[in-house]
Amino acid sequence: MYELKTGRTFLVRLAPGSDLLEGITEKVVRSGVRAGLISGIGALRKAAVGIFDEKTQEYHINHIDRELEICALTGNVSLKDSEPFVHCHLTLSDREGKAFGGHCISGCEVFVCELTIIELLGDSPVREPQDECGGLALWPRQD
Amino acid sequence: MYELKTGRTFLVRLAPGSDLLEGITEKVVRSGVRAGLISGIGALRKAAVGIFDEKTQEYHINHIDRELEICALTGNVSLKDSEPFVHCHLTLSDREGKAFGGHCISGCEVFVCELTIIELLGDSPVREPQDECGGLALWPRQD
Amino acid sequence: MYELKTGRTFLVRLAPGSDLLEGITEKVVRSGVRAGLISGIGALRKAAVGIFDEKTQEYHINHIDRELEICALTGNVSLKDSEPFVHCHLTLSDREGKAFGGHCISGCEVFVCELTIIELLGDSPVREPQDECGGLALWPRQD
Repeated sequence: MYELKTGRTFLVRLAPGSDLLEGITEKVVRSGVRAGLISGIGALRKAAVGIFDEKTQEYHINHIDRELEICALTGNVSLKDSEPFVHCHLTLSDREGKAFGGHCISGCEVFVCELTIIELLGDSPVREPQDECGGLALWPRQD
Repeated sequence: MYELKTGRTFLVRLAPGSDLLEGITEKVVRSGVRAGLISGIGALRKAAVGIFDEKTQEYHINHIDRELEICALTGNVSLKDSEPFVHCHLTLSDREGKAFGGHCISGCEVFVCELTIIELLGDSPVREPQDECGGLALWPRQD
Repeated sequence: MYELKTGRTFLVRLAPGSDLLEGITEKVVRSGVRAGLISGIGALRKAAVGIFDEKTQEYHINHIDRELEICALTGNVSLKDSEPFVHCHLTLSDREGKAFGGHCISGCEVFVCELTIIELLGDSPVREPQDECGGLALWPRQD
């Protein structure tokens, strides 16, 4: 387990029309956060979400090309290649209230997004490819 | 970006039969929290959730009149008209495990709701109508 | 309302093949956290989620025997029978992006799980059976 403590907290609204993942990453980099917890709500004009296929070791991507609420944006910040890296997942709902979700990739167009980023100070985990998880760049386990 | 820091944290269980959004708001107001992060889980006897229609600039409402788990209640507290204002979204699931969601409005009847409210101290954002988002009362962007 | 304050924060990755709820509980117990907020994302090889039936006062269980993303793992730590107790709910999505969810029980097999556990210091709530909620072990209300 990596032990850290809470630092600054940022509240941010992303610009309509921006890319969700790029927008979050830009805010994280600019704030200087190197480890953190991300939580958000809002709405998208369209979404792209992935699910990792353990057999093929690739992400299968779903595109949802309509207005969606962001029921929950949940994620974290850690380091990868010495830079802050955002990993977040999305829960979305459509006009009928039906929910969808997955791993957030580029291609989600923001209408509204209100983010909370809680900075964590201390020993930030560093993502590295993990053989036990199909080569995904994850935190080394500290059991 | 608005920079704040964590203050008090409140754990709360809402009363069965109460309205979810009114219950959360009442707790937030009573605690004196003016900015914060909200997270919760629980169960509802019925739900009402909205999705904003960018064309009509109105919420489309879905009523779900059966027992649902609250998979995630995600939201924030900021100021609107000088008062604490709760904005939260819901992810719900029914007896078959299927998920639904949207913007939380009045009309959600609580069975169980366990909330965590993390107070944020500092310069609380103030909601004001934003032309770029169909007049919705959102935080002014600080890019 | 129970008033606490943030303490340590732990970032953890669970081992592939482990049971999700057992894995979280083991980390919580080992860290010495007695009250806290849990947030996580990841992926499961299979899931088991419950929904409480208020009439029968029992959980109805849904088994989902395929790969799923964890869109959001949301929960808390408090005390039950003098021990730390994890209560968390899951939002999941399948290969088509469709979302499912419910109360997390044993039987969820981890592929990847990245957890954030924010410790809360102070007067940890103690779970006790609540007649007003079908005998479920919940926090006494402090209105």
